[in-house]
Amino acid sequence: MPRPPLPANVRDLLLQANPAVIAANRPDGQPVSVATWYLLEDDDRILINMDAARRRLSYLRDDPRVSLTVLSEANWGTHVSVQGRVVDISPDLKLAGIDRLARQYFGGSYPNRDRERVNGWIEIEFWHAWQLKD
Amino acid sequence: MPRPPLPANVRDLLLQANPAVIAANRPDGQPVSVATWYLLEDDDRILINMDAARRRLSYLRDDPRVSLTVLSEANWGTHVSVQGRVVDISPDLKLAGIDRLARQYFGGSYPNRDRERVNGWIEIEFWHAWQLKD
Repeated sequence: MPRPPLPANVRDLLLQANPAVIAANRPDGQPVSVATWYLLEDDDRILINMDAARRRLSYLRDDPRVSLTVLSEANWGTHVSVQGRVVDISPDLKLAGIDRLARQYFGGSYPNRDRERVNGWIEIEFWHAWQLKD
Repeated sequence: MPRPPLPANVRDLLLQANPAVIAANRPDGQPVSVATWYLLEDDDRILINMDAARRRLSYLRDDPRVSLTVLSEANWGTHVSVQGRVVDISPDLKLAGIDRLARQYFGGSYPNRDRERVNGWIEIEFWHAWQLKD
């Protein structure tokens, strides 16, 4: 599978507010997947954000390996999967991280301000694209 | 997380031809996810189908644990994830399995008849639903 840097057509898909699913492993190795917001950063790392009480957060501290599949909203046969590691996990002070994601996905701040949240950054090791035009 | 049998609203979502992503583990435990077609059977097992040369097939023979996330096409904040095992893997003779999936997703037979394919059936151990109405 190809390694970074990402080519322009993969970056273009990842820069859009597309549906995505992230998979991580439970401590026993069972994969667990869930829909997620994501945001591609300028350095090709990918921001995700979780409620601080999410079980997934403890999974990621145990085993930072993840897979993220991003579906093209227009036609989900077109999709990109990246495998990598969550290399940085840090408190989302003032909810700046989830606000960036909320602006990307629905154009406003994140409505629920009551709960602590956490940012994670995925460092991409491999990526693979299906039906993506050059 | 809840265990089967599936309640009616979860079955209803899974019975539709929705976008879905399946995650399995590489032999080293790295989760790998990819978009997939799926079909809920009457016995609550879930049919998937792969090209017989897919690396994912060897992953599943090594470690049958998978996670499948099904997104509501109308609003992907509404989604269901199931965790389980691929308990049965068998050759897709005459491509009857992929034809069932193709009919579900685009109403016709599967166009590419040249390659051997394989059916897998996921036995659900846990499921979890987000934003699903009763």
